[in-house]
Amino acid sequence: MSEEILKLGIPAGSLQKATIELFGKAGFHILDSERSYLPRIDDEQIRLIMLRAQEISRVVADGVLDAGITGYDWIMENGSDVVEVCELGYSKTSSNPTRWVLAVPDESKVTKPEDLQGGTIATELVSVTKKYFADKNINVKVEFSWGATEVKARLVDAIVELTETGASLRANNLRIIDTVITSTTRFIANKEAWQDKFKREKIENIAILLNAAIDARNRVGLKMNIKKSELESILKILPAEKSPTVSSLANSDYVAIEVIIEDKIERSLVPALKRAGASGIITYPLNKVIH
Amino acid sequence: MSEEILKLGIPAGSLQKATIELFGKAGFHILDSERSYLPRIDDEQIRLIMLRAQEISRVVADGVLDAGITGYDWIMENGSDVVEVCELGYSKTSSNPTRWVLAVPDESKVTKPEDLQGGTIATELVSVTKKYFADKNINVKVEFSWGATEVKARLVDAIVELTETGASLRANNLRIIDTVITSTTRFIANKEAWQDKFKREKIENIAILLNAAIDARNRVGLKMNIKKSELESILKILPAEKSPTVSSLANSDYVAIEVIIEDKIERSLVPALKRAGASGIITYPLNKVIH
Amino acid sequence: MSEEILKLGIPAGSLQKATIELFGKAGFHILDSERSYLPRIDDEQIRLIMLRAQEISRVVADGVLDAGITGYDWIMENGSDVVEVCELGYSKTSSNPTRWVLAVPDESKVTKPEDLQGGTIATELVSVTKKYFADKNINVKVEFSWGATEVKARLVDAIVELTETGASLRANNLRIIDTVITSTTRFIANKEAWQDKFKREKIENIAILLNAAIDARNRVGLKMNIKKSELESILKILPAEKSPTVSSLANSDYVAIEVIIEDKIERSLVPALKRAGASGIITYPLNKVIH
Amino acid sequence: MSEEILKLGIPAGSLQKATIELFGKAGFHILDSERSYLPRIDDEQIRLIMLRAQEISRVVADGVLDAGITGYDWIMENGSDVVEVCELGYSKTSSNPTRWVLAVPDESKVTKPEDLQGGTIATELVSVTKKYFADKNINVKVEFSWGATEVKARLVDAIVELTETGASLRANNLRIIDTVITSTTRFIANKEAWQDKFKREKIENIAILLNAAIDARNRVGLKMNIKKSELESILKILPAEKSPTVSSLANSDYVAIEVIIEDKIERSLVPALKRAGASGIITYPLNKVIH
Amino acid sequence: MSEEILKLGIPAGSLQKATIELFGKAGFHILDSERSYLPRIDDEQIRLIMLRAQEISRVVADGVLDAGITGYDWIMENGSDVVEVCELGYSKTSSNPTRWVLAVPDESKVTKPEDLQGGTIATELVSVTKKYFADKNINVKVEFSWGATEVKARLVDAIVELTETGASLRANNLRIIDTVITSTTRFIANKEAWQDKFKREKIENIAILLNAAIDARNRVGLKMNIKKSELESILKILPAEKSPTVSSLANSDYVAIEVIIEDKIERSLVPALKRAGASGIITYPLNKVIH
Amino acid sequence: MSEEILKLGIPAGSLQKATIELFGKAGFHILDSERSYLPRIDDEQIRLIMLRAQEISRVVADGVLDAGITGYDWIMENGSDVVEVCELGYSKTSSNPTRWVLAVPDESKVTKPEDLQGGTIATELVSVTKKYFADKNINVKVEFSWGATEVKARLVDAIVELTETGASLRANNLRIIDTVITSTTRFIANKEAWQDKFKREKIENIAILLNAAIDARNRVGLKMNIKKSELESILKILPAEKSPTVSSLANSDYVAIEVIIEDKIERSLVPALKRAGASGIITYPLNKVIH
Repeated sequence: MSEEILKLGIPAGSLQKATIELFGKAGFHILDSERSYLPRIDDEQIRLIMLRAQEISRVVADGVLDAGITGYDWIMENGSDVVEVCELGYSKTSSNPTRWVLAVPDESKVTKPEDLQGGTIATELVSVTKKYFADKNINVKVEFSWGATEVKARLVDAIVELTETGASLRANNLRIIDTVITSTTRFIANKEAWQDKFKREKIENIAILLNAAIDARNRVGLKMNIKKSELESILKILPAEKSPTVSSLANSDYVAIEVIIEDKIERSLVPALKRAGASGIITYPLNKVIH
Repeated sequence: MSEEILKLGIPAGSLQKATIELFGKAGFHILDSERSYLPRIDDEQIRLIMLRAQEISRVVADGVLDAGITGYDWIMENGSDVVEVCELGYSKTSSNPTRWVLAVPDESKVTKPEDLQGGTIATELVSVTKKYFADKNINVKVEFSWGATEVKARLVDAIVELTETGASLRANNLRIIDTVITSTTRFIANKEAWQDKFKREKIENIAILLNAAIDARNRVGLKMNIKKSELESILKILPAEKSPTVSSLANSDYVAIEVIIEDKIERSLVPALKRAGASGIITYPLNKVIH
Repeated sequence: MSEEILKLGIPAGSLQKATIELFGKAGFHILDSERSYLPRIDDEQIRLIMLRAQEISRVVADGVLDAGITGYDWIMENGSDVVEVCELGYSKTSSNPTRWVLAVPDESKVTKPEDLQGGTIATELVSVTKKYFADKNINVKVEFSWGATEVKARLVDAIVELTETGASLRANNLRIIDTVITSTTRFIANKEAWQDKFKREKIENIAILLNAAIDARNRVGLKMNIKKSELESILKILPAEKSPTVSSLANSDYVAIEVIIEDKIERSLVPALKRAGASGIITYPLNKVIH
Repeated sequence: MSEEILKLGIPAGSLQKATIELFGKAGFHILDSERSYLPRIDDEQIRLIMLRAQEISRVVADGVLDAGITGYDWIMENGSDVVEVCELGYSKTSSNPTRWVLAVPDESKVTKPEDLQGGTIATELVSVTKKYFADKNINVKVEFSWGATEVKARLVDAIVELTETGASLRANNLRIIDTVITSTTRFIANKEAWQDKFKREKIENIAILLNAAIDARNRVGLKMNIKKSELESILKILPAEKSPTVSSLANSDYVAIEVIIEDKIERSLVPALKRAGASGIITYPLNKVIH
Repeated sequence: MSEEILKLGIPAGSLQKATIELFGKAGFHILDSERSYLPRIDDEQIRLIMLRAQEISRVVADGVLDAGITGYDWIMENGSDVVEVCELGYSKTSSNPTRWVLAVPDESKVTKPEDLQGGTIATELVSVTKKYFADKNINVKVEFSWGATEVKARLVDAIVELTETGASLRANNLRIIDTVITSTTRFIANKEAWQDKFKREKIENIAILLNAAIDARNRVGLKMNIKKSELESILKILPAEKSPTVSSLANSDYVAIEVIIEDKIERSLVPALKRAGASGIITYPLNKVIH
Repeated sequence: MSEEILKLGIPAGSLQKATIELFGKAGFHILDSERSYLPRIDDEQIRLIMLRAQEISRVVADGVLDAGITGYDWIMENGSDVVEVCELGYSKTSSNPTRWVLAVPDESKVTKPEDLQGGTIATELVSVTKKYFADKNINVKVEFSWGATEVKARLVDAIVELTETGASLRANNLRIIDTVITSTTRFIANKEAWQDKFKREKIENIAILLNAAIDARNRVGLKMNIKKSELESILKILPAEKSPTVSSLANSDYVAIEVIIEDKIERSLVPALKRAGASGIITYPLNKVIH
């Protein structure tokens, strides 16, 4: 029987730090990622390789790797035939999706894609951009450019560039005129690896743990004690979709309630619970949440 | 009906980092505070402005802002007529109050405020210092100085300077001879805003959450299992003012006890509980504690 | 009656940061450790002194300090007659023990200690190294060297050098041929101090808290709700040696289970529990775990 | 006879680094300026004190210091009666003068000082600003503000703020509508000190050396060999106001020419000289140039 | 008449810092290059644009820029039809040319290009690499790769990668098997711009000044006084190709000699001159040297 | 015939940066000194090894190295029998010698070495310290200590510690009571190597160049033009021991004078020359000065 190993590609570069932190929260500790493209991980069944996000889907499709983490944008650009295991709701700095946008200098007369007919577009995402214009029946020349930055935008007619918040484009006096593709991080697998019992279970376990860590980020545990007589009214304040754990206490007039909530809800919920008479309210951080 | 917005001033400078961390723990995420005086916050009902702590009470009193966070020292210096919502027990580096102290060079002959009769005092806190000396009927000239630092102290007769621990003054060979004012951080509101239903509730909610986060800092949750027969003796060891949550377990010989304690007490309590026979003792961190 | 004070030595240098963090997690906040060899600690019964790890056991044996934290290697090197209170499972970067290894340049012909007969060994750990070779009846000259680094290894026949993972030795093209001594961090006490009631209890309390913090590092709390009917099958999945806390819920068809597990186990346990039908699984971080 | 000492104030803060470098080039080495307000200098006749630029003219006027380096802006603000020894052509980052400008938010309707009638102006330079508006018979309230930054500009009607290039104002979306005062660095002396023979000569020597170092910054020495027959035509290319040193060579057909030129002229002069037949042209850096 | 402006492209990225320093030594001060792709330069006839070295020759060939600085490698890769004004002897860290080398993992069996027949090569320099293999009649697939780094080398058969000293390749356990192209920095011009009188003279002036600054880097001026009687023997020691400036002195027994020498020669020359009886030998740094 | 190579040891640690800069000024460029104990140098006849200053004299005496740079203190401590080629007037931060001083806590009653009779001394310089006390017939125990820092001083009776200015000792509240040994940097050679013709000449050449670079540090070249009629009076102002180079000019009423002076003299000389009527005075930096 062959040794059971999962070859897993993780992205170097802008997603690297966030990915390694996420694996840490999921319970996998990655060492030496600053120094080596083959970082160590404290799970003997996983072999890690760090590659540029741009290349991971190609290598997973080829079967050189069993699975990998990369962006939807580069899966599309490469046209890679892979299994998409799940979406992973994290990116470089936030949990927002990133966008590749069509942008022109503030001073340009271009206001819609059609105005670019016959023009030149610089981008790192050549295939996706070509398809975008072809779908609209707009004839343009798409030119590869390493980082189609602000200066590039002034030497061609428009650029297609990655952005999270648009702030960097605005700072460079560029104006967004359309979104070419919206991308989030994906966990992908090679099609053959997905048929292998060991690899599939390993991949699914990693997916469960990564998602559990992502879900725990914006949630907290909340506990409080309430009088049994107020139980019903308090339960109404709690988010409907949550089923709180109600446990009995030694003092039978009271019950303890525990519930997992999103931290955005916490802001209005905690003052409301206090006003409704709950006592000993605490919230505590979570490592993982599995729905 | 007008849009419901709370204009909130937070201090730039030495309190900035601590304030933004505190809001984070309270559940409000502030972005771009390093780059912009109008940092973003993930609550659409709040508009943040970052100002020097020295100026916030003036701007809240004028009604340009609805509420703000600043020090008691600068409320006094500016003589601002504002509502003090609550004290916030945090400062730059610790939970200790800061003091403005009257200090002289180690080699000075001055040992008490009265020795400064007829002298010159340099300080950033001119009005408070003038009042301090006037109350004691000591006649001095009070001169404004940007940071009345160690060298300044040698060009005048004394300085009134901010300190948390006194360490920086000692390092500059300055000797403290009196405390002029003790200051802690305050949450203040404009008087009219305080009468507005929406604004007052919003301000109170923020106050509850900030205080809950502050209280959680030095507290931990403690859980343990104990034999029912030992319950009484163990309860005596626990801090009297706390009412622990006692919950029943499947094994009816045992009960689970959970209690929130200060981390200073934890140091003596945990070994004592272990000696008293408690098992499975754990402590865990908290995000918020509401009394 | 004399004032009750424990004089405690903590290691400066490579263990310093990890030690101060560990005390923080144990509930003791150490200030100014970057600036002073007498850092402040928020416990009035402890007086801290920061010394090189090499010298602590000597000073504890002499009674200048009551207790201290140092490595087993330096206790052996100094031949210090002290009480070993407990082992502390932490080191500079990991929870692995460190090793002093006998190493030679990759290009050396030496492959075993015996090949060094008549040669010269450079090391900072002179006594231990002499004893190591004497025990093997190999005659060598052992020379003191401040950090027996890679270049030193090329000027003598072999070095005895500290390593955690061996990575730095490999990077310097050195080959390990044997382990001279394995060392972990130890909490030691002066023999007389150990007989003093106050000091011994204080030392034991610190030991309990430090170990509780160390144990909490790699553990998490796990909670879930399960149907009573599935209780037995789920309990079989949990690690045998753990006794989970099973508590009753308002809904009597379900019970809540809580258990402390190692984070390495969590990786396989969480997906298994999910598959076995547990719901509302969460894990949360711990500050202290006392067995 | 009293000991001969010159007490000299140099500016802390934004000019500090540039001032210490300039003294270094002038031949005075200043040590410990990062750590002490009384930095050491390798001239036993000088005692240095480092103070905020804002306060130096006040202290020199009072006679606490004999001389000092500060900005024209703060001499005016303080209304200090001092001897201005000379202008020193350097500032924080360039040799340009700095300006205090009247600025408003981009979106403000104010376009000229007169539009501010009845308004409020925030600035650190209160007296100068009051005089500026009084001279124009415009009635405004001038409010002190520590750093009248971008956010401040939005809470009052206009600010008066320091700028070198205007870049930081533009980045904050502020628009300059007038210059209130232009300032350069000045070397000033106390009036009595200026009458003291030793102090005056010492001050003048320092002034000569500082100016010689400033002048050397943007100049280079240029040497070349030319045929005697081409001497006249080459001399015409050289800047008229310079008198080059022409020295004879062993080979009597040639002469050597040496001249000090500004580095801006060098850019066009060097190619021109090459085309005109000069050979062995070199330029070399200078430490000091005394006209 | 049109305004006389030269549009000049300089490389962003690895050559950026060295280029800006070189312009500074040549007498052109470039500001804001860290913040803007259109850095300011203190010459009103030049407009600077900062672009990736990879793209400059394309843009110069298109006439968007008049001239630019880039590497020979990228001129070849782009197949750009431009005027090569001169070679500039500088690179990122040294004055050595850079090489694109064909490299394989240490453990690969490949030892010569021919062994790669039928294989896959990853590189950023696709066209040049294709031509290299075509010239040798070796059939390979050349794949574009952003930075064909060490990990990439293990997923294909070989990489073509840039190196100055080979150190980084060795560190990644890669073995060089051939040099594909050797490259140095070039100053290039657009063909039409080269025919424009103003532009050509401006380009030539810049070329003279850049080369003068490069030549001055490794040269020093040397002066000494020697007895006339020893003139002949000393002149023999000096490098033959240099014609020293011999000038007469007031004391007619002596002459002063001045000569520009390379600093590598200085190391043996200075001791030799001292032994030969020269006195008052000094060497001094140079800003520019024009042959 | 054997290859001609000089094996040269240079100090790692506190002297490392200053040594590498000095070699650079002497004309030898050392690369990779941050990364390798065998840094590269651009002279094929030299092989560099970087070692702790403490060990260099031992290794030179043994003949493992031909020559080395180290401190007089460690030559004495090791009792090494080597040739002292010359003193090198540089150290970590200044050109002052360093001192090993006997120091006690401020609060100690010890005021002279004799008061330490019977006490314990901690130091890194054990042999020299033992000899110092033996010479004075004072009986003490001398204990090795890695960096006998401030805290160490409080656990023994006195320390012998290295200092340049005494500032760090004062900051640690230590009081100097005597100087044990004064040390400067030395260039040393192995006795046999010194008899080898190639090695000795190479060592002497390096010594000439290092000393020429050291001498150039605090000197500048000064040039001026003066009227022949004022020549005599100006020559009297110049330092007597210097013989200026007087060269004739095309305008025979004037002569050019050039002289090398120390920069400390420059401060008074330049203003004096200006007052005496010299014109066109400039000073310029030097790379090397050979007397």
